[in-house]
Amino acid sequence: MSVLLDHPIQALSEYVGHASVSADSAFDDGVNGARGFAQSRLEELGFSVDLIETPINPVILATRGDPSWPKLVIYGHYDVQPPDPLDLWTSDAFIAVEREGRLYGRGAADNKGPQIVHMAALRRVLKQNPDLPLHITYLIEGEEEIGSPSFRGFLETHQDRLRGDMLLVSDTGSPGPNQLVVTTGLRGLTALEVKVRGPRQDLHSGVHGGALMNPLQALMRACSELHDADGKVAVPGFYDAVRPPEPWEREELSKLPTTEEEYAQFLGVPNFHSPPGYSPLEAIRFCPTLEFNGVGGGYQGEGSKTVIPAEAFAKITCRLVPDQSAEEIAERVKSAIVRSCPSSVEVEVEVKGGGDPYVVIPPGKPGSTGEESDLTKKAFPLVEKCVRKSFGSDPLFLREGGSIPIIRDLKEVAGLDALMLGLFTNEDNLHAPDESFHLGIMSKAIDAFEEFFLNLT
Amino acid sequence: MSVLLDHPIQALSEYVGHASVSADSAFDDGVNGARGFAQSRLEELGFSVDLIETPINPVILATRGDPSWPKLVIYGHYDVQPPDPLDLWTSDAFIAVEREGRLYGRGAADNKGPQIVHMAALRRVLKQNPDLPLHITYLIEGEEEIGSPSFRGFLETHQDRLRGDMLLVSDTGSPGPNQLVVTTGLRGLTALEVKVRGPRQDLHSGVHGGALMNPLQALMRACSELHDADGKVAVPGFYDAVRPPEPWEREELSKLPTTEEEYAQFLGVPNFHSPPGYSPLEAIRFCPTLEFNGVGGGYQGEGSKTVIPAEAFAKITCRLVPDQSAEEIAERVKSAIVRSCPSSVEVEVEVKGGGDPYVVIPPGKPGSTGEESDLTKKAFPLVEKCVRKSFGSDPLFLREGGSIPIIRDLKEVAGLDALMLGLFTNEDNLHAPDESFHLGIMSKAIDAFEEFFLNLT
Repeated sequence: MSVLLDHPIQALSEYVGHASVSADSAFDDGVNGARGFAQSRLEELGFSVDLIETPINPVILATRGDPSWPKLVIYGHYDVQPPDPLDLWTSDAFIAVEREGRLYGRGAADNKGPQIVHMAALRRVLKQNPDLPLHITYLIEGEEEIGSPSFRGFLETHQDRLRGDMLLVSDTGSPGPNQLVVTTGLRGLTALEVKVRGPRQDLHSGVHGGALMNPLQALMRACSELHDADGKVAVPGFYDAVRPPEPWEREELSKLPTTEEEYAQFLGVPNFHSPPGYSPLEAIRFCPTLEFNGVGGGYQGEGSKTVIPAEAFAKITCRLVPDQSAEEIAERVKSAIVRSCPSSVEVEVEVKGGGDPYVVIPPGKPGSTGEESDLTKKAFPLVEKCVRKSFGSDPLFLREGGSIPIIRDLKEVAGLDALMLGLFTNEDNLHAPDESFHLGIMSKAIDAFEEFFLNLT
Repeated sequence: MSVLLDHPIQALSEYVGHASVSADSAFDDGVNGARGFAQSRLEELGFSVDLIETPINPVILATRGDPSWPKLVIYGHYDVQPPDPLDLWTSDAFIAVEREGRLYGRGAADNKGPQIVHMAALRRVLKQNPDLPLHITYLIEGEEEIGSPSFRGFLETHQDRLRGDMLLVSDTGSPGPNQLVVTTGLRGLTALEVKVRGPRQDLHSGVHGGALMNPLQALMRACSELHDADGKVAVPGFYDAVRPPEPWEREELSKLPTTEEEYAQFLGVPNFHSPPGYSPLEAIRFCPTLEFNGVGGGYQGEGSKTVIPAEAFAKITCRLVPDQSAEEIAERVKSAIVRSCPSSVEVEVEVKGGGDPYVVIPPGKPGSTGEESDLTKKAFPLVEKCVRKSFGSDPLFLREGGSIPIIRDLKEVAGLDALMLGLFTNEDNLHAPDESFHLGIMSKAIDAFEEFFLNLT
């Protein structure tokens, strides 16, 4: 009997057709449809599927195999980003269309395509080998694109069912169809919002200017003291816990087929500004940051309005690297800001939460713990071999600058190390109009994962 | 024959009824109506009235008297601020209503009420004494509330008709109905807009953070270097030309019936922040400033968005005191900002214009030039005497922190020193809902100006 997963492009097209935008309740039908679609595919594969209710969208929790077998957990999400701005799409965001070797549609790359890759590979393996001695737990959530608000709670409630030997995720990127990357680290994140308040209301800067501290002036001075002139973060103790990257990680990065000139051109900047001792491509992976995401106060319109504003704000996020703690760094930054603000204004710093950094050193590489599970020890060299065979080149093992807090949560709650093979690329337009998934990568990745699942145990 | 100016409250009510908002062409009828109203009143007083066309609203230029007589020029404006937000008005903004000793309506205090005061006083004087040997030139413009864009050009074209012995203006404030102020100085102004550009577009702060300079970071550092920690402006040469106030000016200020506690409470600030050596009430009159009127960049909404913004801006104005030059200070500030910005961003500083400071030391006071016209030498002690008689207390001779560039222009182009008697107060809500004019001040001021005009020559 043929099932839909025997036809992966068709399966992905149907999955894309369920407009599962979690940020907007007008798309509830699409969210339910996508969840039902994923559930059906897992049932086709012989999984026993539970839907776990959360305050927003249920999590799919599905298992197959004998509990005594090695245990793999696979993570994905069935929700997608909003499609706006709709008028910039070449074709309908929720009708999958194939053009020039790509399948277009919202969610095609993030994260429905990679899910279909895993499932289609499993379909081939389980068809030939229904008794494959691998216990698999599928975990597909529906709130990733709104920050996974229910996920940590779900993990803590169901941790008994999640314990296993390794986590498999394909929700990261690679440089291009001929060069895949296994992501070995994700930066942590902490967010803060600073508010500085001065006079009761906006004041005329002529009538009152000179008597009082302008909140923008106080805010900008406090913010400017958070960095040294050379670009390092100047918050006391900020780097105390930072573990430098292993020499092999820098060497691996040097194999990346992107030059600094290309990168500068891509960003559109005249010069880089990375901390001393780190190239720009190293800095985004190995160094923590403190960035101003938004600053505002006073008159924002055309022309001028001569006010001293009543208040001003700054939105700050720090990206963190091992072994920094999000909570500790937030406190350090908060203290530095409060210390810098004069008593002639009121300052309030709110910590908006975040997540710790995550790194997995591939077993056997310098810096690895040696305490990885047998499955993890087998999986890393195996994925390298499978990618080489299918794509014709070795994957690179690189950290990434972004943050996926649930990876760290799964490590903390269920002890799982993550194998993250990146299947999307910059050209896939994630979170943007004309999102697409590269069908060449899709096809080769199904081959690679078929080989991987077959040989993992 | 009775004329409207024999009934000043009724005259002001009619004047307010012409909704002369210069900022909005939907109010063109009101602008034309107010101009016509002022023209009729001047004709009633026996003036010969010309309307001088400008690119926007005509200037009323009216004269009476023999050119051989001492020449007084009186300035006013027939346009008003927009009335928004309309829903905060207790009664219609353009239907004058009397409540508790005040006449409410847009423009009642700024500047229609003070104009009616001058005209009603002149009416009484000229009725008794039609041959009063004082040549008067009235100058009433219709673009003051949009920055007087046509006025400098008008002055230069018509300077021959404007030469005279003194300028009289009532478009400044006083502390309250029992304490009037003669304004002896206005700060100058220069405005700049800074734009800092980084990457081509907003970037993901996880994926790219650490490689490049954040434009907000560069902007805030450059801005924070414009002040010392003690609140002085740190731009090199900023204070070079500053002339300290005369000791009598500080002494005069000490008579102001406002305590620092009251002023802090009015502003709603926990502490003042005036430059060393100046009290807050001195600083707003005697010290130059550099204020941030608006700063923005990146995400301004609720919650967080993890971007490195493509650009950031700051709107800056400096208030200037004698003998600073607006043009020179703008260049100094611009250079300081450009110097502070690193090569990893692009910076652009646009000078938006401004005006030089103005000060008139009352004839005979220390610091006065002795070169004032005979009319000016007579007017300052005379106005003091008239105010004392009518209001029961001496006026104070104080500088003000705001800027009225046309006063300086009239000095430069026509050589006129200005006698500025403040007839509105903070409670009049200028530029805000429920603007009103104090009818007690109005009545006493008409008496004072009657006495003044009668005895000026």
